Amino acid sequence: MQVDINCDMGESFGAYKIGNDEEMMRFISSANIACGFHGGDPKVMEKTVKLAREHGVQVGAHPGYPDLLGFGRRVMDLSPEEIESYTLYQIGALWAFARAHKVELRHVKPHGALGNVATKNPDVARAIARAVARFSKELIFIAMPNTPRAEVAREMGLKVALEAYPERAYSADGTLRSRKLPGASIHDPKVAVERAVRMVREGVVEAYTGELVPVKVDTFCIHGDNPAAPQIAAALVEALKGAGVQIRPMGEFL
Amino acid sequence: MQVDINCDMGESFGAYKIGNDEEMMRFISSANIACGFHGGDPKVMEKTVKLAREHGVQVGAHPGYPDLLGFGRRVMDLSPEEIESYTLYQIGALWAFARAHKVELRHVKPHGALGNVATKNPDVARAIARAVARFSKELIFIAMPNTPRAEVAREMGLKVALEAYPERAYSADGTLRSRKLPGASIHDPKVAVERAVRMVREGVVEAYTGELVPVKVDTFCIHGDNPAAPQIAAALVEALKGAGVQIRPMGEFL
Amino acid sequence: MQVDINCDMGESFGAYKIGNDEEMMRFISSANIACGFHGGDPKVMEKTVKLAREHGVQVGAHPGYPDLLGFGRRVMDLSPEEIESYTLYQIGALWAFARAHKVELRHVKPHGALGNVATKNPDVARAIARAVARFSKELIFIAMPNTPRAEVAREMGLKVALEAYPERAYSADGTLRSRKLPGASIHDPKVAVERAVRMVREGVVEAYTGELVPVKVDTFCIHGDNPAAPQIAAALVEALKGAGVQIRPMGEFL
Amino acid sequence: MQVDINCDMGESFGAYKIGNDEEMMRFISSANIACGFHGGDPKVMEKTVKLAREHGVQVGAHPGYPDLLGFGRRVMDLSPEEIESYTLYQIGALWAFARAHKVELRHVKPHGALGNVATKNPDVARAIARAVARFSKELIFIAMPNTPRAEVAREMGLKVALEAYPERAYSADGTLRSRKLPGASIHDPKVAVERAVRMVREGVVEAYTGELVPVKVDTFCIHGDNPAAPQIAAALVEALKGAGVQIRPMGEFL
Repeated sequence: MQVDINCDMGESFGAYKIGNDEEMMRFISSANIACGFHGGDPKVMEKTVKLAREHGVQVGAHPGYPDLLGFGRRVMDLSPEEIESYTLYQIGALWAFARAHKVELRHVKPHGALGNVATKNPDVARAIARAVARFSKELIFIAMPNTPRAEVAREMGLKVALEAYPERAYSADGTLRSRKLPGASIHDPKVAVERAVRMVREGVVEAYTGELVPVKVDTFCIHGDNPAAPQIAAALVEALKGAGVQIRPMGEFL
Repeated sequence: MQVDINCDMGESFGAYKIGNDEEMMRFISSANIACGFHGGDPKVMEKTVKLAREHGVQVGAHPGYPDLLGFGRRVMDLSPEEIESYTLYQIGALWAFARAHKVELRHVKPHGALGNVATKNPDVARAIARAVARFSKELIFIAMPNTPRAEVAREMGLKVALEAYPERAYSADGTLRSRKLPGASIHDPKVAVERAVRMVREGVVEAYTGELVPVKVDTFCIHGDNPAAPQIAAALVEALKGAGVQIRPMGEFL
Repeated sequence: MQVDINCDMGESFGAYKIGNDEEMMRFISSANIACGFHGGDPKVMEKTVKLAREHGVQVGAHPGYPDLLGFGRRVMDLSPEEIESYTLYQIGALWAFARAHKVELRHVKPHGALGNVATKNPDVARAIARAVARFSKELIFIAMPNTPRAEVAREMGLKVALEAYPERAYSADGTLRSRKLPGASIHDPKVAVERAVRMVREGVVEAYTGELVPVKVDTFCIHGDNPAAPQIAAALVEALKGAGVQIRPMGEFL
Repeated sequence: MQVDINCDMGESFGAYKIGNDEEMMRFISSANIACGFHGGDPKVMEKTVKLAREHGVQVGAHPGYPDLLGFGRRVMDLSPEEIESYTLYQIGALWAFARAHKVELRHVKPHGALGNVATKNPDVARAIARAVARFSKELIFIAMPNTPRAEVAREMGLKVALEAYPERAYSADGTLRSRKLPGASIHDPKVAVERAVRMVREGVVEAYTGELVPVKVDTFCIHGDNPAAPQIAAALVEALKGAGVQIRPMGEFL
């Protein structure tokens, strides 16, 4: 049994610091590195790739909307052609640092509002997947199971890493419970961690409404932007290891 | 006898158009494509790489200062580390489009004020050359002969393409006559073209003060941002061909 | 009988030129000046305010989305608070140049996608109107008649200038015919100009489907970004004057 | 006896937080509010003006270079015309929020590298002062005594607030000891505070080389970007009050 843990990284910008990259890098196996559009800048990217390499953490691109002011969290009505070009640009920019540090760029995970739109909108998912495929069919595309985003990527011949969220409640259909509804988040780290272990060992998660839902996990997403993130990550790593689950970069088993 | 002709390309941005790329692409053999910092954007880069491929024109990166408002023409006091990271970023971004269009990225030429500073300041030249070398030692670095920029690049093991300016007057020491002095520009296209042919065939240029100065040319720089540029480029191509000089992308003979 | 003619101005950015401001300024009575978000920059704003003053043209703010790359033509999902602050910022920035050149800032017209959203979405219209009202209740807000944008502005106690489009077809309900439908634009300048005169003199426009629709016009919008714009503007001015209609800045009669 | 305490404020940007504005606002009498170029954004400006008003703190503009990536700390080679327009733009943008919150905009202090250049270069100082004067001759311009920046502002008829730095060592000529030399900073808050009190009460400061140097202080600059800033500010306020010095916004006594 094995699983990957991914986290958004390198989202600082110039004099502005966000996230706790040095700390989080100890617990994860894959880093989604911002590419300068919603966050990140060339110096931060250089530093983050270096940090990932030092920790043996796999490097991936985390492209976002060109909206630093909104941190990529506001939907922009872009054409598929724009999204495809913007994604290619960002992947290439990060790839330069991976190449300079002699590490592989192994995966792509769109950020924030771009990621949310891609999850539901096949045209947007296709635009991103097309950029990924044009860059390299070896790149792994991260997506939740049973989403247009995952399906579109598979249709285009991309490897897909199925993602799960230990800190989020699930609906009976296997999707995340909407944040607009009560109980969308799991606030108790102990519960979150137990759910994660169960997802890997038993392939199921208990939905908010009580049903056991089948779920396949290649990679867990941990959010780095709350102060408790390192504690949660440490607990997750410990629990997974205690349950005999190996934590490995997704690129080693997908 | 052979020589390359290079021109800055892809400097439009969003709804803003600059330069006459479609027209100029017919006359040149190497395109220096802007990378989104001083000009250019992902859609423009995509389009410009495609256009270059269709014309059999070699693709190179044209990195600049992060100053769209100043079009990269204003000196910014950046550290060598900043310049190195910014250059890597821009090369990678363009490389993604070269890869997607299955063409090679073959050269790098810094833009505007960054290029001017690099010509004279070895620390800046070294920062750019280091970024180029870390990306790929196969990339050709464009520089004027007898400049710190050329020397530093050679010391770092890079291939250097020596550049000449048909439309500029030269000093007796082989450098360009300062734009602050009268007579810095050659306004008569016929004279400019004759000087260019002589540089290639005889390896000399007549300095402003009358001396014959030895000059080695791998690539001529043509400015695309004046309305007469296509005419000048056409005249240059015709004159060179008429004198038995082949126009080829620098990557084919360096 | 009197009417105003407004046109978007000052949308150039740094080395990038867009529009034909010097030419258009001769024909209009109100300039909607870009404020640096979707287009424009401080030097362009300075120059455009000066130009407007020299031509006796009324100065107004033309705030847009913070999306230079998309020229403010792409919808961004901003909160009303964000829109309100962004609008205040842009009005103030332009106001500084008006003050420096000792002219009044008299009106506000949101740009592109922001304007389109405001026309239909009362929350967005209210956010913009609130920014205008907080800045000054003397500012005139431009809006099409019978739109949430006009109603909301009036509810907030703002003066509203009712706008009409000579080059657009109208539906029977007095709204513009959608650009997605055939016949949305009037391509014959002569027809456009005749329609404009009729709107002012008779207070009606013929809808695409043939009905005569009542329309009240305080200001005509002329688009400056097509090469024929100066000709159209000249024809409009001539026809209006020939029909005994005075062309005056809206601030003089509203 | 009275003196002002000023501090840079509102330098956060979007999701990025910098400084400790809520805490610092309790101790200062004048806030230099960033205007969106080197830091700050419209929502942050709105919030910071509101916060200043609630604390009875005077509001001033803190214009910087258009270099968010470098936080305005890198010199840019701009023309005086560019600096003048950029300064006008930023003052106006902040003025909109002051107007919306019904507070006066009372002073201007250029940020970072722009401020440093203005201190020594009269052309740059003049460009900024001209922008200030064109906006309003009632605005107070902050400058160190005996600098081109102060002289130029006075020549242009501006009110000048003379600034001193409790945490910096002075040279015998009354200028700040260069940061490139050892001992440029006063690290002991107690010493810094004592020096400040002496500056106000006795009009002198002890230079690094031991001389007593006459110094006139209208406003003390406190840096908000180190974690100990609130403690230092609190100590300064306490010491000044204990010595019978009133802390008042500079606009009330200049």
